[in-house]
Amino acid sequence: MSTVFKALADPTRRHILQMLKTRPMGAGEIADHFPISKSTLSAHFAMLREAGLVGSEKSGKNVTYWLNATVLEEALLAFASALDLNLTPGRAGGTPAPKPAERRS
Amino acid sequence: MSTVFKALADPTRRHILQMLKTRPMGAGEIADHFPISKSTLSAHFAMLREAGLVGSEKSGKNVTYWLNATVLEEALLAFASALDLNLTPGRAGGTPAPKPAERRS
Repeated sequence: MSTVFKALADPTRRHILQMLKTRPMGAGEIADHFPISKSTLSAHFAMLREAGLVGSEKSGKNVTYWLNATVLEEALLAFASALDLNLTPGRAGGTPAPKPAERRS
Repeated sequence: MSTVFKALADPTRRHILQMLKTRPMGAGEIADHFPISKSTLSAHFAMLREAGLVGSEKSGKNVTYWLNATVLEEALLAFASALDLNLTPGRAGGTPAPKPAERRS
């Protein structure tokens, strides 16, 4: 739970998650949106992966990332439930992005 | 948003919020549950207050804290909505603790 909230505590990491909500994206494509060094961005990706919030697939020199929306939803719901918060499962907005494997099938 | 998630990233702070979900508590009563120094605990309270997740009232030497459940719910819902997550408002569990002022009326 701590790793999830720690991952969410940074605006760049939340921005990355928001970019990935519509579709999987390559690391380079994501990097184009942020005026930060490659190593800093890699550290952000590492934290998001460690928290299980994104999945990744390497293909040659390229790494593709996608949002693990279910992991994020389940973490937030578990926390909300522990605190008796007013949150329940239910579709709030659009349709989550499919993973690359699902798109190919 | 960052201050909320930063506040939630620590297990002691999440534990404090969980203790406060049933009723407001004094700082001393909360401190009895944690084998940490008074200054460390004060820093935790300060972060929770800064994030708006707890309210506090000083009476003489005592400080009483309560959970601002609505602030927490609204922050999580705003984040969930930005990411099109599967979370909507809805009572997940029990009844939130009343604030001291509401209990006295």
